[in-house]
Order: sequence, then structure tokens, then C-alpha cells
Amino acid sequence: MTIPTTPPSGFRDFLPQACAARAAAVETISRVYRSFGFSQIATSAVEDLQVLMGKGGGENEKLIFKILKRGEKLQEALARSAVKEGPPAAEAPGEARDLSALADLGLRFDLTLPLARYYSRHGSQLPHPFKAFHIGPVWRAERAQKGRYREFFQCDADILGSESPLCEISVIEVLVAAVQALGLEQPTVVLSDRTLLLSLLDLAGVPPEKRGEACLLLDKLDKAPREQILSELEASLGAPTLKTLESAVLAPEPDLDRLRAVAPEAMARLEEILQGLRGLSARPERFRLCPSLVRGFDYYTGPIFELRHDKLSGSLGGGGRYDRLTAQFGGAGVAACGGSIGFERLMLLLEESGASPPAAAPRACVMVFSPELRGRSLKAAARLRAAGWDADLYPGEGKLKNQFKYADARKAALAVVIGPDEAAAGQVRVKDLATGEEKLETLESLAARP
Amino acid sequence: MTIPTTPPSGFRDFLPQACAARAAAVETISRVYRSFGFSQIATSAVEDLQVLMGKGGGENEKLIFKILKRGEKLQEALARSAVKEGPPAAEAPGEARDLSALADLGLRFDLTLPLARYYSRHGSQLPHPFKAFHIGPVWRAERAQKGRYREFFQCDADILGSESPLCEISVIEVLVAAVQALGLEQPTVVLSDRTLLLSLLDLAGVPPEKRGEACLLLDKLDKAPREQILSELEASLGAPTLKTLESAVLAPEPDLDRLRAVAPEAMARLEEILQGLRGLSARPERFRLCPSLVRGFDYYTGPIFELRHDKLSGSLGGGGRYDRLTAQFGGAGVAACGGSIGFERLMLLLEESGASPPAAAPRACVMVFSPELRGRSLKAAARLRAAGWDADLYPGEGKLKNQFKYADARKAALAVVIGPDEAAAGQVRVKDLATGEEKLETLESLAARP
Repeated sequence: MTIPTTPPSGFRDFLPQACAARAAAVETISRVYRSFGFSQIATSAVEDLQVLMGKGGGENEKLIFKILKRGEKLQEALARSAVKEGPPAAEAPGEARDLSALADLGLRFDLTLPLARYYSRHGSQLPHPFKAFHIGPVWRAERAQKGRYREFFQCDADILGSESPLCEISVIEVLVAAVQALGLEQPTVVLSDRTLLLSLLDLAGVPPEKRGEACLLLDKLDKAPREQILSELEASLGAPTLKTLESAVLAPEPDLDRLRAVAPEAMARLEEILQGLRGLSARPERFRLCPSLVRGFDYYTGPIFELRHDKLSGSLGGGGRYDRLTAQFGGAGVAACGGSIGFERLMLLLEESGASPPAAAPRACVMVFSPELRGRSLKAAARLRAAGWDADLYPGEGKLKNQFKYADARKAALAVVIGPDEAAAGQVRVKDLATGEEKLETLESLAARP
Repeated sequence: MTIPTTPPSGFRDFLPQACAARAAAVETISRVYRSFGFSQIATSAVEDLQVLMGKGGGENEKLIFKILKRGEKLQEALARSAVKEGPPAAEAPGEARDLSALADLGLRFDLTLPLARYYSRHGSQLPHPFKAFHIGPVWRAERAQKGRYREFFQCDADILGSESPLCEISVIEVLVAAVQALGLEQPTVVLSDRTLLLSLLDLAGVPPEKRGEACLLLDKLDKAPREQILSELEASLGAPTLKTLESAVLAPEPDLDRLRAVAPEAMARLEEILQGLRGLSARPERFRLCPSLVRGFDYYTGPIFELRHDKLSGSLGGGGRYDRLTAQFGGAGVAACGGSIGFERLMLLLEESGASPPAAAPRACVMVFSPELRGRSLKAAARLRAAGWDADLYPGEGKLKNQFKYADARKAALAVVIGPDEAAAGQVRVKDLATGEEKLETLESLAARP
């Protein structure tokens, strides 16, 4: 049996440089979210399957990594599933109801559902309304492919307990600010409303049973060639319906009067949101109405939006209003609106933009001349750290040549050597690893370097 | 069906205050680890079961949350397991080999095994030796109880590729420094060596087959009343053996000469480590030899240690040398040594010590007088943030009374109101929420406050 050294398909390791860049990005996003008045929360990675599958189960169930029951409960479930299956036969393997009885827990596939559970439980102890941010990994049992992972980070900002369009404005504002704080250009934000597209589909004569398919195709407009999508839409809806749909939904400049007539309430709200966002921005044209916008999850109930970036196909993030999602945990449910930055795509953009990740390099690397002089080096490194330096200490007493190789690999600025001569003279030898220049000085004078 | 609002047993939500305290502690620990020359790495939460169970499986297998296979592979496994079980019968439910065929992945139960896999894969791209730190959640399918969770954080520092006792010194030094950087008193560090205890057990006449039980009992010395452990040891080993054992292992002051005679190499190394640590510390007596020390995991091969704190029963962290753990991923394996801070116990200590967690409170909360004046408030909040403030904006236009209640709940220092009069005069009304004092001033003068 060979034990693999790679993580499972769709999962990743991060080398120190990538890890430092990711940690710095999370830190920046957290700082921006906090500065906008959002409070950080955390929930468990593991949830009861009931929570993750909700009332219906449905689409989400396929996304869930399910955790096998343990101990006696697993034995019981297996015994039951074996009995239910009747005579073991290859033609009738276990059905869905049996499978789910084998698992009781699952990994969260987004941060919104855990937030809804969290708010249902803790809402009375939280400010009202509650502005939350939530950063962490989520897991989806999808087929891994280039740029799509089965473990990835989300960075969510949500407001619970308010119906005001200020929620949409504030959520979009903070996502845009976070992206910009990372040194990227201001993203474009496209907005629509769940009810707007449905009204437009109705008006174009799309029968209710074709709505789902039409939405799925419209959702692909950014991800596949436009001509291909249009021909698939034509095949599904027929040419006349597609023609009406095109002018209503797909026109480059939406006909505002027509949209207002079709969905007056949704449009009034969207225009308030757009006005608020444009009023805050030096680039108001980057906030646009986009009636063809579709967001995957079922839980949205009103305005929806996506962040897009010139250098990225698909979205850099998005969100929307999901009033009453909390109702599945009891009670009447609460107004809610939130958005998420797609962290993996963001890191891709940052990498491509060459926005230099922070150097995690130590200022000094202290060498260890011999076991006898180990104590000197330990104390020298400690002294430099006390002066605020990042000071690495070579973990061994090997050849100095190897120690210098290590200092180079660590990209240290200075190497510090204390051999017998230096120790006797009460000095340290400092080598500038960029210039090769060497200098003898006291440890105190080195520690005092600005 | 009621959907639960609590996380599964042993899992936790964190309210904003706790979340801020945890984030600040992780940040401090990371900063200290980095300043000592350790580079941050990250691995996936999910590993192949083969990686987690290692060559043997054994003890660890029970700790693992296993993830159910998906799609066709699950169907196949179920069909196979049904066939293997023979006639479904309550008296012969599925055996371990069948269960593990249902799962292919698992949640990591520590950060050491993933690090060993990581190093086996990436070692050639890393500095040599490699000083790594690794912070994140791990999961253990143990019975949850007070203070013991099934999802908890670990904060590991490891050095791979060096046999020098400098590794043990550096790892212990950085763990101690991290605990102190959080404002806690210097922990006590107790040290021993795997081989030392085994030699002492031998010498006391403990037969090899009783070793495991004796170690388990000795491991409980900190967690249960001493008398109880001693009587259990006596029952297991007999009075004469226990007596020899007591003087060798359990004496308050270990007899160094005797230990040196019993395990000369291990003792020489331990004394080097102790000398290095004591030389660095203003409290050298806090580093102690403790021959009865046992650490749970099987992978340790040499020196082991634990951090203890007066105000905590049990350990605050620990670690040891685990040379050649990487060999299970192929090759000869590499020298390695590492340690971990028990993050949950640390947070408990911090909470009890009253070391005040950082306030996540915004400096200002900007109120929204009416939908018409929304734009003014949005811009005022943006202006303050541009000046470096954390400025919350109330997400709605409700009663000012409720908005002030919100500002209090957020513990904001100032409330900023822009009503029609203020807007007309080009000013903002600023209320100091501690004193109740109110002041009219321009937004620019407010933003310029130091």
C-alpha cells in the first residue's frame, strides 16, 4: 500500500509564499469589513445534515460531504440498511434514503445557511440589526477542475434584521472596498432582482415549466459563447419567444421605462440601491442594472448582484437578499441580505496582477558556529527579537556553507555569525546578504540599527 | 421535522466578542512564530483515509470523522458490503473492513500527520532545514465533554530536517514566547524522553506486556488524584515493583546520576536542551526534567515535553521529536521535532485571567435620519473611514431611539446624526455616547479629530 503525498482531488496544500499571501488578503478583507461596522462571527465546519439539507434537500444535497455515523449508531444504520435492501443483489444497490441514514453530519457548503442557524440561535444576544462577517473554508463535493476546488474560502458580509435598501448598498459597498483595498481596480457590480427576471420571462411568453431551464441558460451567458447560449435558448423556447426575450432581457442598455412597468416595486428598490452606490463612487458607471442576472441558490428573495472584473470571466463575488431563510429554524424569519467575495478567484487575480504578496522573510538569520557556541547564538537571536526584529535561528550546527544557503532560501537580509573569535571579542559578524558586505560590531549596536 | 439551531454536540458557534478574542490570539501567536523564523503553511482539512490511518490504523482510527463516498463509488461499496455481510442478521452487523470501504476521506485529527505528508511532497522546494508553523482546526470523534470539543484549534511549530537539540530548544522557546506574548505568565515546561521512561520501567521490573498500561496510568498523574493512580499502579504491577518505580520515576527531584546511568544518550540530549532553555530564561527553574511524562501519540521517537500552567490542570501544549514519521510516505524519512499550543485551553486561561480581549467596537456609528438623507449618511461614514476610522452605518432608517440602542450595543464611542437642519447647515451632530455630550461641527473637523 502506497500512502499518497498529494491531498485528495480538489484539495490543496499551500507553500509558505502562497500561505502568506492568503493570510495577508484575509487580514485586509477583515480589516475593511470591520471598519464598515461588521462584526466577525464563526460557526463550526461541521453541521447536522438536517441543517444543510433544509426542508427540501434538493440541489444542495449533492454538494454535501457527508460524515459517516460512528460506533453503535453506524452499526445500527448498516443493519437497517442491509435489511431494507432485502436480498443483496447487484441490480438493487442502496437507495438514497438508506445512504443518508449512514451519515448524520456534513461539511458546510456555504456560510449563509450556518449564519441563518447562528442568528436563529443567538439573535437575541446580538445588536439589532446585526452586521456580521464570516470568513472561512467551505466544502463542496463537486467534480474538481481547473480553478474549481472542493475546499475553498468564502468571505461573507451580511446584515440581518433590516429591510432597508441600505443593506444592499452597505453590503455591496464593503465588498467593493475590500477588493480595492487589495490593490485591485474597482470591480463592476451588476444588479437585478429575482422577481424582475421572472416577470420578464412571463411577459415574453416563457411558460412556467420552462423558467428553470431558461434561467440556467441565462446564467451561463458569462461563461460560454453568447451565440451558443442563444441557440440553446431558441431550441428550448422557440424563435418568437426568444426574440421578445432578447429585447427585454438581453439588450445592452436596459429599457428602464419598460422594466419599471413590468416590475415597479423591484425596480424602485433597485434604483434606490443604484443611486446610493453611484453617489458614493468616483466611477458611478461601474454599477449597472442587468436584468438577465441569475444567481444559483434558491434562497434569494429580492435584489441580487454580482461583482465582475475585466480580467476574470465569471464573477468575483455576489449575493442578494434572502428574507426569511431563518424561518426554517422556527418563527417568522427575519429580513436578511448578504454578499460574498470569491476568495480563490480573488487570489488568482492578485497573482496575475503581480500585486506583490508581503515578504515573510526574516530580517536576520543567526548562524550557529558549533554546539559549544549554541548559547551565544540563541541569546543573540533573542536579543534581536526583543528589539522588534524577525530573527531566524538556523536549527543546527552544520557547515556554515549550508547555513548561508538556508539564509538565502529564507531571503533574510542579514546573516549573523558568532564564531570563537567574535565570542572572545564580544562582537558579532554581520553579513549583508544582498551586497556581501561584512562588518564586525557589538550585538547591541546591531540591535539598535533602525 | 425540527431543524436544530445548535451546532452538533462538541462543535461551537462563536459570538463576536469571543471571535475577536480568538482572532487576536491567533494573530499574536502567528506574529511570534514568524518572528522566530517559522514560515506558515496550510494543508487541507480533508485527507485521504490512508494518510490519516497510516500503515497501522490502530488507535487513531477511532478519532477520525470519516467522509462517506459519493455517487457510484458509494453504490459499489454498499453493494459490496451487503454481499460481504451475507444474510442480513442483527447478530452480525457490518464489520470494520466493510465500514471503512464506505468512506474514502476523513477530517484531520492533528496537524502533524498532514505536515509529514506535506513535507514528503514539497520538501525539495522548501528551505533545509524547514521551520514551519501551522494553525487551524482539527477534528476528533471523541465524546464531547466540558472543555473537550470535537472541533478545536491547534497552533503547531515544527522543524524538519535537523537532528540538533537546537530544534527542541527553538520549538519550546517559541511556544513559551507565544504564551507570554498573550500576557500570560511564563508556563512551566516539563521534559522527558520516550526511551527514558521505557528504560526506567524495565529497570523497575515492569514486564513488557504491562508497559502500555503503566504508561497510560502515569499519563493520568496530572488529571486524577495521585493516590488513586498509585493504587491502580499497585494493582497492576504489584507493591514491590511499584516501590522501585516510585523512587525512579515519581520522586519529586529526579536522581540525575541514576537517570544518566540508565539512559545515557537520552539524558545527555535532555540536559543539553535544558541548558539551552535555562540560559535563555529569567526563570530557569521553570524548565524541569519529569521522567514520568508520557505523551499520547505513538509517533514520538525521542525527547518529549509539555507546557503547564499553575491555573490549569493538564497541559497547555506539548510536543516532541518524531524522526522518520515521514518515512510512511516513502524514502528514509527525515528528522523532525515539533510542538503545539492547545488553543482552547489557552483561550480558557486568557478568559479567566481577565486579559481583556480587544474591543471590536467602531469609533463612530452614523445614524440615518430618513430615506431622503440616506446619501448624506453614507458619504459621512465613507469620509470618516477614509480618515482611518472604523465607522459603522446603521442599516436602516428606523426610529432614532432604536438607532441609539444599536450604537450602544456596538459600544461605539460616538454617534453621528445628520437631520434636515444639520444637512442644511453643512454640519453633523456628534454625540459622545459615554458622556452624553453633543456637539455640532463640520464633517471635516470631525474627521480631523486625532
